[in-house]
Amino acid sequence: MKGILFVLSGPSGTGKGTVCKEVLKRNKNIFLSVSATSRPIRDGETEGETYYYVSKEKFIDMIDNGEMLEYAVFNGNYYGTPKHAVYKLIESGRDVLLEIEPQGAAQVRKLFPEAELIFLLPPSMIELKQRLVSRGRESMDEIKNRLKAARWELLQADKYNTQIINDDLDDCVRSVIDYINTKHNQRQKIDDLLNEEI
Amino acid sequence: MKGILFVLSGPSGTGKGTVCKEVLKRNKNIFLSVSATSRPIRDGETEGETYYYVSKEKFIDMIDNGEMLEYAVFNGNYYGTPKHAVYKLIESGRDVLLEIEPQGAAQVRKLFPEAELIFLLPPSMIELKQRLVSRGRESMDEIKNRLKAARWELLQADKYNTQIINDDLDDCVRSVIDYINTKHNQRQKIDDLLNEEI
Repeated sequence: MKGILFVLSGPSGTGKGTVCKEVLKRNKNIFLSVSATSRPIRDGETEGETYYYVSKEKFIDMIDNGEMLEYAVFNGNYYGTPKHAVYKLIESGRDVLLEIEPQGAAQVRKLFPEAELIFLLPPSMIELKQRLVSRGRESMDEIKNRLKAARWELLQADKYNTQIINDDLDDCVRSVIDYINTKHNQRQKIDDLLNEEI
Repeated sequence: MKGILFVLSGPSGTGKGTVCKEVLKRNKNIFLSVSATSRPIRDGETEGETYYYVSKEKFIDMIDNGEMLEYAVFNGNYYGTPKHAVYKLIESGRDVLLEIEPQGAAQVRKLFPEAELIFLLPPSMIELKQRLVSRGRESMDEIKNRLKAARWELLQADKYNTQIINDDLDDCVRSVIDYINTKHNQRQKIDDLLNEEI
């Protein structure tokens, strides 16, 4: 059986990164796809592990050649998911997890409709605001913009295959893993039925 | 909040009708949409309850005017789901359940992509064959055709939002109701977040 592509997305501050890390730690049957970036390699990072590092020109070429499943630009640097990395894993029967922004998730939905999209919901908008404030990365103006973006992203949330609330981290991680296992078992069951001789 | 349209489908012999009846009996928050048919009314049936009865000409007019969410022809009679009946329930905030053949479900997916499609799986193909034989409605040739159709339908099963195995009826009904409640709560949560003042 082919693997399944799972996409974990949601507004900034819902804890995508933390949930993704925990899911991968607790479930060794799911693989992370390595992203490509045009930003320079940093100390402690490894080519082909942290990222595939390519020049901006090469990245733009890859976009033009349809080699990207999704991409986005942050602070003038390109970040994206090369199709070949994902497809290789899926063809070899491995389930893959991508953790990306909602814009990227929308691109994946279009190019790869059989992907399973998971939208992380905050317990409340007040709580989301407090998380953004307490991580202290952005100014109040930037936080206001992120909350505005979150509202827009929430309007797309029902296009995802499922929505999971990240209130308690442990509960949330367990729900994501349950969802992944359920989907895996469902596709396995369909496959078994199709292969049954009668 | 608007209601959700749930579609229960699956190959002939998976027990769609029985599961649907039990779900409606046990969950009073979900409503059945009344279908239209061009076949004559029978003893014990009620207009607007069992079916909406219309002439064949009227039915074809309704198709041509885009008034049908889905339809199919069996033994020369038309059967289908008028949009207005479904939309009225959904607009009034009610969740609706449709029990239809896979061809009809494919039409609904196209016209109403926000519908939640549930595919009923048999525990095995052997078991499906036995169910078709033991209900004694079809000849062995017809059963062979139904099993062939089931294989084709199974190839579409992963396009449904979820797949539920009908092995033990009680477990299956509970899984369908759980799925309906989960989806209802997820949409409610998104709605609450969007309506929260911050």
